[in-house]
Amino acid sequence: MIVNLGTVGLDTTETPFKSVSKLVGGSGTYSSIAASFFAESGLIGIVGDDFPEEYMNIFRDRLDLAGLVVEKGKSFHYVSSFGFDLGARTSIATELNVFGGWDPVVPEEYKDAEFLYLGNVGPQQQLSVLDQVDGPRLTIADTIEYWINTDREGLIEVISRVDGMVLNDNEVRQLCQAPNIITGAKEILDWGPRFIVVKKGEHGAILFTREKVFPTCGYPLEKITDPTGAGDCFAGGFMGHLARSGSLDESVMREAVVYGNVMGSFAVEEFSIERFLPLTIEDIEGRYNLYKSMVSF
Amino acid sequence: MIVNLGTVGLDTTETPFKSVSKLVGGSGTYSSIAASFFAESGLIGIVGDDFPEEYMNIFRDRLDLAGLVVEKGKSFHYVSSFGFDLGARTSIATELNVFGGWDPVVPEEYKDAEFLYLGNVGPQQQLSVLDQVDGPRLTIADTIEYWINTDREGLIEVISRVDGMVLNDNEVRQLCQAPNIITGAKEILDWGPRFIVVKKGEHGAILFTREKVFPTCGYPLEKITDPTGAGDCFAGGFMGHLARSGSLDESVMREAVVYGNVMGSFAVEEFSIERFLPLTIEDIEGRYNLYKSMVSF
Repeated sequence: MIVNLGTVGLDTTETPFKSVSKLVGGSGTYSSIAASFFAESGLIGIVGDDFPEEYMNIFRDRLDLAGLVVEKGKSFHYVSSFGFDLGARTSIATELNVFGGWDPVVPEEYKDAEFLYLGNVGPQQQLSVLDQVDGPRLTIADTIEYWINTDREGLIEVISRVDGMVLNDNEVRQLCQAPNIITGAKEILDWGPRFIVVKKGEHGAILFTREKVFPTCGYPLEKITDPTGAGDCFAGGFMGHLARSGSLDESVMREAVVYGNVMGSFAVEEFSIERFLPLTIEDIEGRYNLYKSMVSF
Repeated sequence: MIVNLGTVGLDTTETPFKSVSKLVGGSGTYSSIAASFFAESGLIGIVGDDFPEEYMNIFRDRLDLAGLVVEKGKSFHYVSSFGFDLGARTSIATELNVFGGWDPVVPEEYKDAEFLYLGNVGPQQQLSVLDQVDGPRLTIADTIEYWINTDREGLIEVISRVDGMVLNDNEVRQLCQAPNIITGAKEILDWGPRFIVVKKGEHGAILFTREKVFPTCGYPLEKITDPTGAGDCFAGGFMGHLARSGSLDESVMREAVVYGNVMGSFAVEEFSIERFLPLTIEDIEGRYNLYKSMVSF
């Protein structure tokens, strides 16, 4: 089982090409659904009683929901916009609603989960979940700029306690106050984790372990609709491939980074989780194999 | 012989970490020296009689200078600065000096050159050189934003007459007025060339032919001193490997893109051509092989 901690809620997203209102989103949603193509996937999150039944039905189909709390009130709602090149996101509104002050509870049946993904909730919430589990085989965590600025100390404690971090390039720069992501990633490795994956959006991702660097390029896409959730889908694909392979060897980790790129590339082709709904594992393997032949020389 | 057309002059460059004044630079300088590690390399350019003898001696050592004109006056001088992440360059001053109004003349002995690189001089100068040569086996061209804005028509004629273009990602977006570089590159292929290489700085480069896409990541560098010239060194390494291989097959083109990345990665480690001076072909092959094992999965 891959247990995913993260936000679950509704996203309103504006792009120069199309805008959408209140579609399902959140780091927990994206990572858990991406992971569900590879292995059993559970979700620790909270939604309000306004959370659309349509989305709850999709969750029921694909996920174990023992850790999803439904509370009276409104669901988390995030409003953001993207510019012409779909590169930089501007946050417009973050309505925490039931997510505000939530103290995540790990259900009994998740406590011995082998794989744990701590999505971009607050470091104190991530630490609380770490305190409740029996030492998973592999734990990875993500964060966002907001937590680097407001709870750096808590975040560094999270980093010291997990096996791996998945961070985007700007987060690495901010965390280390250094311009170079390679020296930055190496500095973060000194804080404790065995590996760091630096996500670079359309430019791919780089895996750093103490011994090796594995740079990858992104899967080239002609159609990018909405970059939201790509990083969490990366994490879901990455964890998913490790979970189904049962190995954490360097060669399997490298494959997992590529599956992460593949899942991220699917995610951005449509808004929300729309691209995932018709997807099969054969589609995923097809894109993985295409990527592999594309980049070979 | 690889013939390189381009600017030759002096660069003054400011970065947040260090600044340098009037070191040798220019697109012709960078591409011709990068190419010289692989094959005989000639330079078509113009300098003033103030061009330092120290640099002229380096040129004499490495290059065929039949196409380099020395004219009374000052050499081309370019002043620019980079911000914290060394990503975006700001032009501060472009003193054309003897380069202004220069009409390049192709020496007799270059007219049957097999390989021709048209660096980022004006489209009319590139067309003039194309008119003077006897149909090289492979011609590639580069440009800069300035020419996209001031002589788009001339540039499109250049594009229609060369075998390949090397452009950076922003130039592709500007040229096609489209946000996506993959659809952009495909549009440019429709204008005539057989291939496009889209350079993405530290994020590597993507080769587009009519049939295939070959994305590559950049060689990961901990120390980036000055991004100036990376694109031209990419072109020099790319042409260089094709010239020494004698083949333009897809598989050799792919290797050439990686040699391009490798030469670009050396270039940015120091200001000007300083990193190239102590470099040997063994260093280049070493980095190529390291890159290959780094990215394999």
